[in-house]
Amino acid sequence: MIDELRKRKPVVHCITNHVVSNFQANGLLAIGASPIMGEAPEEAAELASLAGALSLNIGTLNAMSLQSMLIAGKAANEQNIPVVLDPVGVGATRFRKDAVTKILNEVTIAVLRCNAGELAAIAGADWQSKGVDAGEGRADVDELARQVAAQLGMIVAVTGSVDIVTDGERFAEIPFGDAVMTSVTGTGCLLSAVVAAFLAIKPEDAFSATVVAMQYYAIAGERASAGAKLPGTFQTAFLDELNQFEQSEIDKMLKRKEETV
Amino acid sequence: MIDELRKRKPVVHCITNHVVSNFQANGLLAIGASPIMGEAPEEAAELASLAGALSLNIGTLNAMSLQSMLIAGKAANEQNIPVVLDPVGVGATRFRKDAVTKILNEVTIAVLRCNAGELAAIAGADWQSKGVDAGEGRADVDELARQVAAQLGMIVAVTGSVDIVTDGERFAEIPFGDAVMTSVTGTGCLLSAVVAAFLAIKPEDAFSATVVAMQYYAIAGERASAGAKLPGTFQTAFLDELNQFEQSEIDKMLKRKEETV
Amino acid sequence: MIDELRKRKPVVHCITNHVVSNFQANGLLAIGASPIMGEAPEEAAELASLAGALSLNIGTLNAMSLQSMLIAGKAANEQNIPVVLDPVGVGATRFRKDAVTKILNEVTIAVLRCNAGELAAIAGADWQSKGVDAGEGRADVDELARQVAAQLGMIVAVTGSVDIVTDGERFAEIPFGDAVMTSVTGTGCLLSAVVAAFLAIKPEDAFSATVVAMQYYAIAGERASAGAKLPGTFQTAFLDELNQFEQSEIDKMLKRKEETV
Repeated sequence: MIDELRKRKPVVHCITNHVVSNFQANGLLAIGASPIMGEAPEEAAELASLAGALSLNIGTLNAMSLQSMLIAGKAANEQNIPVVLDPVGVGATRFRKDAVTKILNEVTIAVLRCNAGELAAIAGADWQSKGVDAGEGRADVDELARQVAAQLGMIVAVTGSVDIVTDGERFAEIPFGDAVMTSVTGTGCLLSAVVAAFLAIKPEDAFSATVVAMQYYAIAGERASAGAKLPGTFQTAFLDELNQFEQSEIDKMLKRKEETV
Repeated sequence: MIDELRKRKPVVHCITNHVVSNFQANGLLAIGASPIMGEAPEEAAELASLAGALSLNIGTLNAMSLQSMLIAGKAANEQNIPVVLDPVGVGATRFRKDAVTKILNEVTIAVLRCNAGELAAIAGADWQSKGVDAGEGRADVDELARQVAAQLGMIVAVTGSVDIVTDGERFAEIPFGDAVMTSVTGTGCLLSAVVAAFLAIKPEDAFSATVVAMQYYAIAGERASAGAKLPGTFQTAFLDELNQFEQSEIDKMLKRKEETV
Repeated sequence: MIDELRKRKPVVHCITNHVVSNFQANGLLAIGASPIMGEAPEEAAELASLAGALSLNIGTLNAMSLQSMLIAGKAANEQNIPVVLDPVGVGATRFRKDAVTKILNEVTIAVLRCNAGELAAIAGADWQSKGVDAGEGRADVDELARQVAAQLGMIVAVTGSVDIVTDGERFAEIPFGDAVMTSVTGTGCLLSAVVAAFLAIKPEDAFSATVVAMQYYAIAGERASAGAKLPGTFQTAFLDELNQFEQSEIDKMLKRKEETV
């Protein structure tokens, strides 16, 4: 699918936070997609209409960008353009919770891409963000993701020590990546936009597109981390790796993992 | 002129998009200029007045930043401070088209720095953004740039596989650069700000200043790309190269190019 | 204190400018802190309440972010969460001067982190920003910092060729760092956020926390610059160095400096 993506260079419309917008645009360019960034409500519907997918990220949300997200989301829905939502820090404030509720009510989301704490906040679960990746916690995350996916009728993709994807019935684990990825800001945000780019290539099978996007991303991260264990160096190596690595390498990694299981 | 720029460290006021603002500031620092970023209408006129040149970029334009651009542009005009306009994605939405029209109507622009698709949108030409750099397309871009420059009374600098600069009469080609430059977000945006920095050094000859700025930039990119063909590595190498390379190297590259023609 | 910081991973709420927000978040992650960025007034108080320290930066201030800073600052004060203010370019415009005055009037600031020109603007002194680090100028900066600290009842930390920290009575010099640090945008802004992170660890002794933060930061910069004299390379090396280097190295540098004095 990555070859197809590099050939077709899908346009991804991002309404995103200013902390990660540069990294997100560079990451999308690196995989072969074409980012369009914009935040004005006046142009939100038009920009979404030009895109193969829409990526919404509430990291530095304000009243104006929320309005743009709702307009762009509805425009995308009307034209069957898939929408990814990244509910950054949704558990932190009432403003973010209300915004996500509003987006989920008014826009059909194809993929919710989040971490365990954000998933719990959306589910309304009483969740400790510390230790969510450990032991007992892991099982809870899997089950919670299934429930949220089934209830909201969307794909839920949760990143952690092992990433998971579920549509409420199907379930996939992505056992790749490296801890250094969490030491660079926006690796989760960029992943959400990368999922959007893959959705643009295969909108008719959003589950597979999401799984492949997350495999691609996590393996690129794992490969980049091999020679770059510090955050400055890793950021550079990761963009390089996203740009250069091939489907054949992904297949090799997947095969190796299967054999060791 | 680069030695003069490094000595005088011109202040460049940038009202720009949040995707590239970090890269633009670092690129200006690298060449020896002093960036001032600001976006509030309340301070737009004052910031412009402090600067040797003003750089406007509509990449993530909103109602507030548009207002700031108009205020800053008029203040710059009153004090003969040159203004560069980068009409990012102007063909994409009605909001951007109207904003650029308003800016062109109310502010005297010294240099319009854009790509072929943006040029066509401003000219109102019916243009396919795919393939603009190829065969027949190239001749059209040259002619269109001349027409727009003559009609609007400004310098037009268009980047592509070969960059061009024209004031409607004079015409220059900058046959340097490398394709990897297009895989990093903001290389066009930063170029616009670099042109502004050179204009601050030689406002009385804006055509020459623009040509020299674009030669400097494209050659730095070409040199950086020699050892850095991937986007992460390239971004780092490019900032280093912008910082360190010398007029003598530019002269050498120009001479070599002349000999091979 | 850096070991303690890495263990406790304090949350630092940043209301900051979009030029440096990515670098600031990555720098905070690199030292082991947890950045939360946000700019909407609707959530400013809640975000501040979640944090161990609040970092305010007026680099691309607008009416909305100023409002957020005031709300967040007051919320932080109510809960004894230390607040750092970075008055970027305060001398440049009336808007910035008024904003800083308003913040200083309505919010109790623990540490004012600025350069000599910004300090002079706040003190109302008639100051030439050129040459502030040279000869006679240095003594003036030291004295001005003491006066401002005493008068406003806060710690004042001024960066320059030699960084200084004073609370009006105590006085510390940080004779580390490298000139290449000034060629990367946001090194001052990130330092302010790093000071906030250290304050979160030792709020009961803000003077010591500030001195240690500035030693840590300047030494990391000096160490990174040893192998990276160009701005692109330096930025990467600096993030790596902030992430990896140890208290024992700081002690060694401090000891060596004492011996040479």
